Amino acid sequence: MSGHHATPPGTPEVTRLLAEWVVTLKGADIPAEVRREGLRTFVNWVGCAVGGARHETVDAALKAVMPLSGPRHATVLGRPERLDMLKAALVNGITSHVLDYDDTHLKTIIHPAGPVASALLALAETRPMTGADFLTALIVGVEVECRIGNAVYPHHYDRGWHITGTAGVFGAAAAVGKAIGLSRQQMQWAFGLAASQSAGLREMFGTMTKSFHPGKSAENGLLAALLAEAGFDSSERAIEAPRGFACVMSDKQDWNEILGDLGTRWEAGLNSYKPFACGIVIHPAIDGCQQIRAEIGDRVQDIARVHLTTHPLVLELTGKRTPRTGLEGKFSVFHSAACALLRGDGAPTAFTDEVVTLPEIVDLRDRIEATADPACHEASVTIDVTFRDGSTLRRHVHRAIGSRDVPLTDAQIDTKFRNQAALVIGEEAAEALLARCWKTADLRDVADVARQSVALLEAAQ
Amino acid sequence: MSGHHATPPGTPEVTRLLAEWVVTLKGADIPAEVRREGLRTFVNWVGCAVGGARHETVDAALKAVMPLSGPRHATVLGRPERLDMLKAALVNGITSHVLDYDDTHLKTIIHPAGPVASALLALAETRPMTGADFLTALIVGVEVECRIGNAVYPHHYDRGWHITGTAGVFGAAAAVGKAIGLSRQQMQWAFGLAASQSAGLREMFGTMTKSFHPGKSAENGLLAALLAEAGFDSSERAIEAPRGFACVMSDKQDWNEILGDLGTRWEAGLNSYKPFACGIVIHPAIDGCQQIRAEIGDRVQDIARVHLTTHPLVLELTGKRTPRTGLEGKFSVFHSAACALLRGDGAPTAFTDEVVTLPEIVDLRDRIEATADPACHEASVTIDVTFRDGSTLRRHVHRAIGSRDVPLTDAQIDTKFRNQAALVIGEEAAEALLARCWKTADLRDVADVARQSVALLEAAQ
Repeated sequence: MSGHHATPPGTPEVTRLLAEWVVTLKGADIPAEVRREGLRTFVNWVGCAVGGARHETVDAALKAVMPLSGPRHATVLGRPERLDMLKAALVNGITSHVLDYDDTHLKTIIHPAGPVASALLALAETRPMTGADFLTALIVGVEVECRIGNAVYPHHYDRGWHITGTAGVFGAAAAVGKAIGLSRQQMQWAFGLAASQSAGLREMFGTMTKSFHPGKSAENGLLAALLAEAGFDSSERAIEAPRGFACVMSDKQDWNEILGDLGTRWEAGLNSYKPFACGIVIHPAIDGCQQIRAEIGDRVQDIARVHLTTHPLVLELTGKRTPRTGLEGKFSVFHSAACALLRGDGAPTAFTDEVVTLPEIVDLRDRIEATADPACHEASVTIDVTFRDGSTLRRHVHRAIGSRDVPLTDAQIDTKFRNQAALVIGEEAAEALLARCWKTADLRDVADVARQSVALLEAAQ
Repeated sequence: MSGHHATPPGTPEVTRLLAEWVVTLKGADIPAEVRREGLRTFVNWVGCAVGGARHETVDAALKAVMPLSGPRHATVLGRPERLDMLKAALVNGITSHVLDYDDTHLKTIIHPAGPVASALLALAETRPMTGADFLTALIVGVEVECRIGNAVYPHHYDRGWHITGTAGVFGAAAAVGKAIGLSRQQMQWAFGLAASQSAGLREMFGTMTKSFHPGKSAENGLLAALLAEAGFDSSERAIEAPRGFACVMSDKQDWNEILGDLGTRWEAGLNSYKPFACGIVIHPAIDGCQQIRAEIGDRVQDIARVHLTTHPLVLELTGKRTPRTGLEGKFSVFHSAACALLRGDGAPTAFTDEVVTLPEIVDLRDRIEATADPACHEASVTIDVTFRDGSTLRRHVHRAIGSRDVPLTDAQIDTKFRNQAALVIGEEAAEALLARCWKTADLRDVADVARQSVALLEAAQ
């Protein structure tokens, strides 16, 4: 508009160039190892969406939105209900995140699949696409949200934004825009509409609204692309403008994180999968405590006190001393460590209302202390155990399981998938769904995955 | 969670106290003059919603969302299409703002009715309520959004947030929450869900996405209240927490603006109505130019050049020198002044693609200059005209029409309503609708207003 809010000289045309890349990229341009990581991303996401499908958070969301649903063309994974694609994107984004068991782009703590896959699969049930095209769009969406996240992280996150919501909406818009064949200009508009819906506050951690964020960013990103397709215009420089996303929502803007090495450096190839059903920052502590339990066996009963030396973010995010609910337990490194020591558990079963208030868990939890050490790597922890007889044990975890250095194997992803999905749809259906997911690249219609997730439920109706 | 993001000592429980006020207030607690302003707010909003109903922005939005609509219980004012209440809230929020002709809370430049009335009337078509209860909820919603806006203005706006979107979502949540009888705790959750959907960037000004903001905040606020009603929980201190709305989205937080004199100081009584179909900041210039035109008549052809001395915000927001579309014309004080001088026009007809590119308008526009003067009041302007013969004329507007000092009379609101609504639904229907609107307080079912806006359209089908 006026000179007052002109883009500073030297600012690249971030939105235009990113949109150009999204719409021109071909599936064959994506390296095989990145496509493989995209497939692992999808398999892990389906398991989480089914695994979380019966959570009370999902029941509450469905109670509100079911009566307002449009044509019920899209599946709520693992549930009998069907919804219009916008609402299915919302609900599947909630289910896949609600157990805090999904995936993580470790540089930004974005959980990439929730916003992107929820939007894209809901779309695919109305606008058929092959599994190969689906994976291309999924990878593009993940790449876009992680690059945009990188550009503003850490200031944006430190300010209080839940980056999975705020960056995720761009990923969903990019994936859907790619899938429906938006022009470059329409893709710029979709980014503008995404920017104007970018939201989600970290204040909501510990409440149902946390998992609302990936859901709403999926719905909003899908809507952004559909509006742009219909000719609804927007700013064409929504990411880089002085009053655009990056400048308003962060004091840091590193455009090279968005545009640098596009097509050669792949953030989508760096996705990781949670081995434990809670925030990634507690994973080293759980990993270390499980290792200690494996080593000392029954002597866990003789522990007098435990001291954790952790990265500062651990206490900042999960410093809750007295969690009262399962959900709050996810925000307590003390509960998580106690549960890993006493039960060896870090799965969704470790974060129920019942377990969080078990006397023996509470008793040990209250004897665990933690110190933040800025020199401690985010994927590391040092655990000092003092037994009642005065003897001590130290365990240092250099890199926790699930980190980039110790990624989950395909077999571990399978186990995680089976364990959570079988609780919701049964072992047989979980096994069949898992097999179908791994074959995504060969599917003529990727919506088969959504339908398969409820095949036995429907047969039972 | 941890001490790191505890609320600073002395911070009041803003969210809880505001929610308590919303749910306990009775209609009779609202002073008569505030109720009257609430009625004027509603009448003006209906006129704008109908007036904007045929805009291409609305066509594009409907093209995208119509196929996804749920049960079509809610009216798109002034159009034959019907939508589910969430989508109707979205679209009516767009229509009522798209001509930039709606209402303004001058302290914050919030356009209060769009987010609140769009959500509330769409709800009322499914959950019947009297006109009196509707007005109570409307006034509560406007009060909440303006108070929250006051608490963070101007920093929040200066940062780049479109405050009608970001604060409007709280107003919509409050109004709907009041109407459906949320408990205090549910109202706190609704504010939490509103905070996590608070969005909208000023970068979008001049594009369709600007009017998307009041629409989306209406839809999102409605959804927030419906989710809270269904038991979907959230932070209970979303407004004041260190990672809540006010701290994340503004460097200024004045809690007294939210809690001070609740029930005695009424921001909802300060609403104003635009006499011209563009941003409020250009209104003094248009008013002054219309006055000059009335004084000099045909001598407008002899103008050599014009100089405007304005508040700095005028050039910041509307400094566009060469608008190419009607929409861009709204962001050009130069076009607006030229059109007021040559045609005496400031209505929607002044901001069409055709008028913006008329040679005689462009010719005069290019001979208008403007200077920002920090000492100039926002509702003032000084206009210096130099004629070809060297003679000069100065006009100082102390307070523009539509400002709090020179409010639109009821009769002027009527004229504005008739002029825009008649173009869409015809004179007879516009007259009947206007009469119904003024009787809102006596309606047994306020949804009659929505139905009346399309009565002749439906009769014609």
